[in-house]
Amino acid sequence: MNPHDTKVSQNNIRMNLIIVGTVAFDAIETPFGKTDKIIGGAATYISLAASYFTAGAGVVSAVGGDFPREYISLLNDHGVNTDGLEIKEKEKSFFWSGRYNADMNSRETLVTELNVIDGFKPVIPDSYQGAEFLMLGNLSPDIQIAVIEQLTTRPKLIVLDTMNFWIDNTPADLKRVISMVDVLTINDSEARELSGEYSLARAARKILTMGPEYLIIKKGENGALLFSAEKMFFAAALPLEEVFDPTGAGDAFAGGFIGYIAKTGDVSFENMKTAIITGSAMASFCVEKFGTANLVSLTKPEIYNRIQQFAELVRFADMDIT
Amino acid sequence: MNPHDTKVSQNNIRMNLIIVGTVAFDAIETPFGKTDKIIGGAATYISLAASYFTAGAGVVSAVGGDFPREYISLLNDHGVNTDGLEIKEKEKSFFWSGRYNADMNSRETLVTELNVIDGFKPVIPDSYQGAEFLMLGNLSPDIQIAVIEQLTTRPKLIVLDTMNFWIDNTPADLKRVISMVDVLTINDSEARELSGEYSLARAARKILTMGPEYLIIKKGENGALLFSAEKMFFAAALPLEEVFDPTGAGDAFAGGFIGYIAKTGDVSFENMKTAIITGSAMASFCVEKFGTANLVSLTKPEIYNRIQQFAELVRFADMDIT
Repeated sequence: MNPHDTKVSQNNIRMNLIIVGTVAFDAIETPFGKTDKIIGGAATYISLAASYFTAGAGVVSAVGGDFPREYISLLNDHGVNTDGLEIKEKEKSFFWSGRYNADMNSRETLVTELNVIDGFKPVIPDSYQGAEFLMLGNLSPDIQIAVIEQLTTRPKLIVLDTMNFWIDNTPADLKRVISMVDVLTINDSEARELSGEYSLARAARKILTMGPEYLIIKKGENGALLFSAEKMFFAAALPLEEVFDPTGAGDAFAGGFIGYIAKTGDVSFENMKTAIITGSAMASFCVEKFGTANLVSLTKPEIYNRIQQFAELVRFADMDIT
Repeated sequence: MNPHDTKVSQNNIRMNLIIVGTVAFDAIETPFGKTDKIIGGAATYISLAASYFTAGAGVVSAVGGDFPREYISLLNDHGVNTDGLEIKEKEKSFFWSGRYNADMNSRETLVTELNVIDGFKPVIPDSYQGAEFLMLGNLSPDIQIAVIEQLTTRPKLIVLDTMNFWIDNTPADLKRVISMVDVLTINDSEARELSGEYSLARAARKILTMGPEYLIIKKGENGALLFSAEKMFFAAALPLEEVFDPTGAGDAFAGGFIGYIAKTGDVSFENMKTAIITGSAMASFCVEKFGTANLVSLTKPEIYNRIQQFAELVRFADMDIT
């Protein structure tokens, strides 16, 4: 396997955010309709969401020769650098297909074809070295570790997303990568599984001893929690009239989060709170249309207005203590 | 049946809040232990929680001759008027027993003995007439309607709590009482069942056409939502390290809510937001110990500090939109 079959060249904007994850085909069925193979993958959703906040994002991933060049141009049009996106002409792209149940909270996976991702060895382009921020989207822990180990400078902040599959199948590798990062994002059932604690407050305390300084627990339509050893923050999810397609919501959340951190350069707990709200806003846009349809066409005023809705949703007057 | 077998006499404080619901025995098993028959019932939890905010609360309910006088004194010691609590000496008190599963979110009912509540005809004491606020705790809709119809003056605000049992078994009566009240409180699965809508935002829109001006959807450890036709508010639940016993949490929530409304006399949406946070705080205290153990021994500074924690939990800085 030649890791450099093809490469898409790129303008020379200084990279400050490296995004690692799948760039792939998805086929989605929900109670509201179904799609053919459309652009999907964690790195796609993360980078599109982040693109509204930072111009210096670059992707590390691999696709096959079957991947439409228009899809890559779509990322580039959003300012996403694809120097780190290998195109392996003789292979096929990662493909996932799933069907959501009527409640939109549970789904069945119909097809998972790893294809080009099977045995993928990430190569960090020189142009990405020195980036301050690293977002490791859901992938096998050994790929995530390989990325961290290739970086000549340790980023200011490394954020790791993962899922129950890796807790079950590669727990040792997963624990190793968890020990190398600053922020871990997982969902509530994964936090419970990883810690063996039902209470999320206790689960968080335990997981924070595994290495990360911050933990984000995603609860889908029930919001998200941010924990440090000393502090806790809750970001509500906006109750939406219509959820068309939950695919990519967690990745859009991660993209909004890391994009806002990269934009501001501020890794304090206080700034992470606003970053989580930003992520929640991007996730809320994501689920309102199929696939990436909404994420590719947002405006800054729309995003800002949505964030104001999140602020308004939880604002209340102080108690009358007379 | 004589509705006035016995009555506990009371000091003459002007009533401004009538609380209707069971006063009963509970026996509770959780992964952390079990209780004998202890004081329970919706009206007990509601009135204890409300007692920290308003001195003018009175209960409408019935107990049997087996109900310990110390339990009634406990309510009186918290300033709760029990003129409306019938003691039917020859009957037995309502008894509920349940066992919580390890996740503390699901439970099995082991015993339900209606006893004195079977065929209960509520009688509103003259001393309660003119009260500005009415809290109808979970009971059969016909009892709730009988209370409303006995009031000589329509209260400024009527709050109704109910549950899926009445949606399934007495839907016509339930819809009638829903049409008579200002605020309905139900949990998320009940909101979905009542409306036939999965999206809580849509469910709320539909339920608000059934009569109430406000709807509160309780989501347990995932917080609570307040809806009016125009507005929406979300109250986060405080993530707790330890939940010992969820019994009464919804009633403690209702008691904190209506107690704060009765204290302030303000039925605006804005004030209801603070009232819901107050209810959430009372629910968080409730679940930290078995039964009413925590609710009977709180101090105002403890409550105020807890409410500050709720405020801090969701506070975030405005977005940098440069």
